[in-house]
Amino acid sequence: MTASSDEYFMKQALKEAQIAFEKDEVPVGAVIVCNNMIISRAHNLTERLNDVTAHAEMQAFTAASDSLGGKYLNECTLYVTLEPCIMCSGAAFWTQLGKIVYGASDSKRGFRKLPENILHPKTKIVSGVLEKECVALLKEFFRDKR
Amino acid sequence: MTASSDEYFMKQALKEAQIAFEKDEVPVGAVIVCNNMIISRAHNLTERLNDVTAHAEMQAFTAASDSLGGKYLNECTLYVTLEPCIMCSGAAFWTQLGKIVYGASDSKRGFRKLPENILHPKTKIVSGVLEKECVALLKEFFRDKR
Repeated sequence: MTASSDEYFMKQALKEAQIAFEKDEVPVGAVIVCNNMIISRAHNLTERLNDVTAHAEMQAFTAASDSLGGKYLNECTLYVTLEPCIMCSGAAFWTQLGKIVYGASDSKRGFRKLPENILHPKTKIVSGVLEKECVALLKEFFRDKR
Repeated sequence: MTASSDEYFMKQALKEAQIAFEKDEVPVGAVIVCNNMIISRAHNLTERLNDVTAHAEMQAFTAASDSLGGKYLNECTLYVTLEPCIMCSGAAFWTQLGKIVYGASDSKRGFRKLPENILHPKTKIVSGVLEKECVALLKEFFRDKR
């Protein structure tokens, strides 16, 4: 996997975020990649489903496990437009996720604000991929809300 | 809410844990109570659903929000037989949960092992309700697995 493939898959996550935006959801999108193939796609649906657990990542984990027929995602990479929150990172731990690649940072609710790594010790982390685009979409969403 | 009502509702959570046990799932059960009424019941289904996000608490949050027609559970109490993990506590934060009552402690994956409170600042915590019964069921499950 190269930097350019990271950008390719993040663009796919951004497409999901755009769909969330159009549904008036906080625009966060995610895809999960295994062997260079996208095995799940999801976007935030907390308002539509009236359910705080319906973050893009949670749905992507559920769909990826379903696709693979196994609970563990140790050979998979999660691409997500925003740094995962504590709930989603706790779920990532249980999946033994291979790698997380995120775009925008979330200093308020992101998992990296904690003084301890809550991911699985084997999970690699890459941040800031297409950060500008990911941040821009979130800013546009919250600007419209004011 | 008195100690005896805490015990009453924990017994209901234990009934759910028993159902999980009978399905060969790690026996954790949960109920959510609002205005002294149970509005959702769930038990761990991670094996059956092949999904790490299918903890009792997560399903109980989703069902409770559905029952109330709102995402926020600030007037609700979660009764759960085992101390919630980081994922479930992260979800509890998003629901702005009023209170958590749990039975057995989980020193390995429970949220209290973290140096920082990850719950909503308004969430009250009660621990050790029917602890012996909750621990006994878990021990029985893992003894049978050896």
